[in-house]
Amino acid sequence: MDIGKLPPELVSKYIYSRMGSYDPAVLIGPSLGEDAAIIRVGNRYLAMHVDPISGSLELLGWLAVHVVSNDIAVRGLRPRWLMPTIMLPPSVDESVIDVITEQMDHAAREVGASIVGGHTEVTTAVSRPVVVMAAVGEGDRYVATGGARPGDLVLMTKSAALEAAAILATDFKDMVLAAGVPREVVERAQTFAKYVSVVREALAISDLATAMHDPTEGGVVAGLAEVAYASSVTIIVRASSIKIAPETAALCSAAGLDPLYTLSSGALIATVPAERVDEALERLRRIGVEANVIGEVVPRGSYLLDGDIKVASPYVRDKLFELFIRQSAGRS
Amino acid sequence: MDIGKLPPELVSKYIYSRMGSYDPAVLIGPSLGEDAAIIRVGNRYLAMHVDPISGSLELLGWLAVHVVSNDIAVRGLRPRWLMPTIMLPPSVDESVIDVITEQMDHAAREVGASIVGGHTEVTTAVSRPVVVMAAVGEGDRYVATGGARPGDLVLMTKSAALEAAAILATDFKDMVLAAGVPREVVERAQTFAKYVSVVREALAISDLATAMHDPTEGGVVAGLAEVAYASSVTIIVRASSIKIAPETAALCSAAGLDPLYTLSSGALIATVPAERVDEALERLRRIGVEANVIGEVVPRGSYLLDGDIKVASPYVRDKLFELFIRQSAGRS
Repeated sequence: MDIGKLPPELVSKYIYSRMGSYDPAVLIGPSLGEDAAIIRVGNRYLAMHVDPISGSLELLGWLAVHVVSNDIAVRGLRPRWLMPTIMLPPSVDESVIDVITEQMDHAAREVGASIVGGHTEVTTAVSRPVVVMAAVGEGDRYVATGGARPGDLVLMTKSAALEAAAILATDFKDMVLAAGVPREVVERAQTFAKYVSVVREALAISDLATAMHDPTEGGVVAGLAEVAYASSVTIIVRASSIKIAPETAALCSAAGLDPLYTLSSGALIATVPAERVDEALERLRRIGVEANVIGEVVPRGSYLLDGDIKVASPYVRDKLFELFIRQSAGRS
Repeated sequence: MDIGKLPPELVSKYIYSRMGSYDPAVLIGPSLGEDAAIIRVGNRYLAMHVDPISGSLELLGWLAVHVVSNDIAVRGLRPRWLMPTIMLPPSVDESVIDVITEQMDHAAREVGASIVGGHTEVTTAVSRPVVVMAAVGEGDRYVATGGARPGDLVLMTKSAALEAAAILATDFKDMVLAAGVPREVVERAQTFAKYVSVVREALAISDLATAMHDPTEGGVVAGLAEVAYASSVTIIVRASSIKIAPETAALCSAAGLDPLYTLSSGALIATVPAERVDEALERLRRIGVEANVIGEVVPRGSYLLDGDIKVASPYVRDKLFELFIRQSAGRS
């Protein structure tokens, strides 16, 4: 089978149809583009999410915390309780555990979460270190991916494809250097992983937003299409308003990737009623996060995304994965 | 590094010292022998736990649900919300997903839990299918592993090493047949995995128990030692009262394993005040679960376990893992 997430038709066939017992406390369960489950406990809400990280070696522990915390925070809930499962091949040295757990501790403090359990195991089942992070958030209100309404404006924080740029500058360093990207550009992009968290910005505007989403695979375009799909609306996109860092542009160009269609953790997408947008932008400015309006929400038309970018399906395959597949084929 | 869970000294050094932010809502966090974290949300309690399963192919989905649900249920809380991460090597066929998710759905209905999220991915990071299951339970009271008090009696349900017997009959079938175990004994033991859940029995007596525990690695002896350690008591063990199925005895003997010291999921250990033991046994009888008294709790002496079995440390290495290591060495 192809490397990557399961294709949507198999997810429908084998996953969504087999969810165990029905539970009325589950307000939002698994569905396309929804970031984390929402569950009611008493008069509180829980958000639950799990994500495996196996692609990065240098930032494994750090990414494992931030990636899952983002998915909780875009629900408008604070990530509070983390449970990592660390699986290591027998060949690893003790120092790998040291680096992973040090990064996790640091990242958990950054997002204000507590590690409450987990499992660490050396096993022949993995060929490289893998961390699966489960997270639970908690709060008294939540935001759904499907909450965008016609009349809302669409904000995006930071810039597109920061995550892809960081990976290109690290895991594909030789390739992009050979393609002529200056070394100082590559080195700056290597630090982009530090911008991957959207927890502070999501929590700062969660009471203003009608929908929030964390664009990852398939990039900003997939993220916008998922919001439009989940909300049964169309989003008019102004491509020229979507910020792209110069380093990202150079690296994506060298790799033949469109930065709007590849890994974009670190950019928060939020829909906000037009009359509250100024307040949202002001709050983001106050915590030092750049953001701008990249589109508007209109009633559902013939496309999910319309305007400068037309997309009819929420399934956007990430182009970076093809590079990984080529790289891994070349290695084996 | 050696295959298996991380040794306790490395857990102390790299795990327990790095738990992110402090959170007063976490009533029980990670510590030796404690089955699941306990967290207070409003006036409710949550239990959270995560477990990876990579050893079994045939029962992967089924075990993933039951093993983690056991750890929630021995806290006296009902397992309610599950999040599986399914990682598959590129070589697998679609039918493997079909079997895994069908088993999960079935097992989740058995324990009354709902699958609320998860992740399925085809990745070169795993050499065989791996499921990491995160689970959250919920209820209005909880039981701690460390709650046993002098004067309590110790109950055990079903029999020791059911899990090890099922594995020996499946993964080491050729070895045990060659050692002279009759084929019909092996075939009966192959079905023992169906007894692995302790959810019903744990919930049936949770309001009578002072401590409950799910003995897994290191078997009943490790499970008892963990209860004694967590509760700062000594348990006087009556080895002759610990039931062992004849099939289990035959298979463990053929493999050179002591059934009291190896994988025992399916046997619930519970400490109950002496005056409530008859009621606990009666409730278990009513749901069709065999149980009996295997020891008593006394003030902490020089051993954690005393009487027929003397153990001073809660760290008991499971003998079955040595077989796995030998088997995997033979294959590579």
